[in-house]
Amino acid sequence: MSNQFFLSKSARLRSTPFTKQIEEYGVKSYTVYNHMLLPTVFESVEADCAHLKEFVQIWDVSVERQIEISGPDSARLVQMMTCRDLSKAKQGICYYAPIIDEKGFMINDPLIMLLEDNKWWLSIADSDVLLYAKGLANGFQFEVNIHEPEVYPLAVQGPKSFALMEKVFGSEILEMKFFHFKKFEFQNHHFIIARSGWSKQGGFEIYVDDHEKGQKLFDELMAQGKDLNVRPGCPNAIERLESGLLSYGNDITIKDNILECGLDNLISLADEVEYLAKDSLKQLSAKGIKKSLSGIKIQTKNITVLEHLPIFFNGDQIGELRSSIYSPSFKCCLGIAMIDKTHQSTTGIHQVVINNHDYQIELSPLPFSQ
Amino acid sequence: MSNQFFLSKSARLRSTPFTKQIEEYGVKSYTVYNHMLLPTVFESVEADCAHLKEFVQIWDVSVERQIEISGPDSARLVQMMTCRDLSKAKQGICYYAPIIDEKGFMINDPLIMLLEDNKWWLSIADSDVLLYAKGLANGFQFEVNIHEPEVYPLAVQGPKSFALMEKVFGSEILEMKFFHFKKFEFQNHHFIIARSGWSKQGGFEIYVDDHEKGQKLFDELMAQGKDLNVRPGCPNAIERLESGLLSYGNDITIKDNILECGLDNLISLADEVEYLAKDSLKQLSAKGIKKSLSGIKIQTKNITVLEHLPIFFNGDQIGELRSSIYSPSFKCCLGIAMIDKTHQSTTGIHQVVINNHDYQIELSPLPFSQ
Repeated sequence: MSNQFFLSKSARLRSTPFTKQIEEYGVKSYTVYNHMLLPTVFESVEADCAHLKEFVQIWDVSVERQIEISGPDSARLVQMMTCRDLSKAKQGICYYAPIIDEKGFMINDPLIMLLEDNKWWLSIADSDVLLYAKGLANGFQFEVNIHEPEVYPLAVQGPKSFALMEKVFGSEILEMKFFHFKKFEFQNHHFIIARSGWSKQGGFEIYVDDHEKGQKLFDELMAQGKDLNVRPGCPNAIERLESGLLSYGNDITIKDNILECGLDNLISLADEVEYLAKDSLKQLSAKGIKKSLSGIKIQTKNITVLEHLPIFFNGDQIGELRSSIYSPSFKCCLGIAMIDKTHQSTTGIHQVVINNHDYQIELSPLPFSQ
Repeated sequence: MSNQFFLSKSARLRSTPFTKQIEEYGVKSYTVYNHMLLPTVFESVEADCAHLKEFVQIWDVSVERQIEISGPDSARLVQMMTCRDLSKAKQGICYYAPIIDEKGFMINDPLIMLLEDNKWWLSIADSDVLLYAKGLANGFQFEVNIHEPEVYPLAVQGPKSFALMEKVFGSEILEMKFFHFKKFEFQNHHFIIARSGWSKQGGFEIYVDDHEKGQKLFDELMAQGKDLNVRPGCPNAIERLESGLLSYGNDITIKDNILECGLDNLISLADEVEYLAKDSLKQLSAKGIKKSLSGIKIQTKNITVLEHLPIFFNGDQIGELRSSIYSPSFKCCLGIAMIDKTHQSTTGIHQVVINNHDYQIELSPLPFSQ
């Protein structure tokens, strides 16, 4: 019985403008995200991680699909879906804003950008936000246009990303603050570029809206980055856990409410902010929650999480493990778990049972510290 | 450069109650469908196809997620999303009903079942219909409950499926008509079973709503089917094309309207049937369409379709190829293509260019005939 399986490709699992290039560079594995191919391994997860922390990588993150909402009611519709106050949203800034249902349960956790008056992009995680927005727009009879534009983000990540981006786009790009975005020129084409990315190693995301120019940009970044030891890469399962970055679909699902996900600081209850879940969130906040996400260190070399795994302590289930991987830096497995509130305050090392095995674990705030 | 890639599993690509069993039986490849693992190959696509056409297979099609819509406004909401007249829908019958947006573009193509008064299941293709339904329900302030129940369909497909199902569920199951469903008992548990499935080899779909009983049922079907040469299997890329079964995400996307998909016969324009796209469909019907789906025979041993491929005839693009695979029975590649209306009437064999190669093709009504 194998534990490695091939992916059967088809048009339904959409390729990207960069698929051919990354396959020539030797991508080994994919996952599927927003009905599209997301590379997961080039050399190995460990080697890719070590490289990412020291040098610079070009990531095909086309799967970060943009949902474009425009028209006179666009601001109302966008606000309707999130509890974060966007009433003072400014062009040029990325807003991490949970998309929630009417009861406060998590539908997605995109970055939201106001591109121009009445034109928004939601850079989404893995769920069809477009369909939720379309349903709401039809029901509320909002005057909006909703579509998924032909935009395919490329991320440039790692400590040497700044040097590489300076070479290609000029020194002005170094002045951009974290979670800000602006247009920069390459070969007479202006790309929206944000200082952002799904790692904590520093970097940028380039919103490629022209296939051919994007492919040329990919090649240029690889060429200019030679002396910086650039490589193609991808979001890295070890680095993202070390950095405490949450993954929708793994750590967060539609069965979790926003308070359980620890995103309380993004909730506005101000009178002028109108969204679906507001009354529900007031009630939830008053009532309190029984469980919440936590970092977890597990003293083992390997624990495979292919579904949420119940965690038992003294015979009682105290939570579930949602993702985990061995971190060579921390010399243990790091993970994200949903833990009962009554056990959250428990400090120190405890023996638990997961999948019928005994493990020594320690709960830890995110991001992890050594 | 490899053209085979591994799938990186994680909790986000949900396992099913049958994943362990089918991996023990040697599944080799998966695709991802509704954020869940769908097996695609056991022996080989060709060998699996030949076996399916002669014997019986048990398919883990848990990815056919059910969206349950219940409550006093459930019928209104379900009808709002589809142009098929469901006003006279009866319990016990499966309705193939396209889910469309306000302009008539394809969001999904589920089987819809009325389970009891004010309780519906939509057995969906690969898109988050739950989010569309939630958006509409919120916007229209419908009194409904919408969720994805813990239901994991198992299909029993192939000419010997009837003999096998009779052994396990008794002869009454043979009396059930195509696209009808009913409850049948196994080990004191009553499963909803439909005479349906994503092949034209005959068979059933069992809506497993209890993990443990479902796993026992899987084992029982394998045990009782020994003398019928039963095997685990999966929807087969060759058989489905030979049978002309359309695949949402491959052949049909949200950029196609229902008329272009050839589903005109499912459109009701009756006064009492209220749905979002009605006015748009009246206009579309009056205006007519410029392209539509067609079967296509391509005289070649192999053509790989990983994205929609433009088809050129005398230098002009006349359509795009959306899926294709070599059929040993037809001794050519069979495919589904979106073809300009002006070229649909063209009969006989023509030379076209796809991916810079010359091919002899012939358009063909679906299902294909030899």
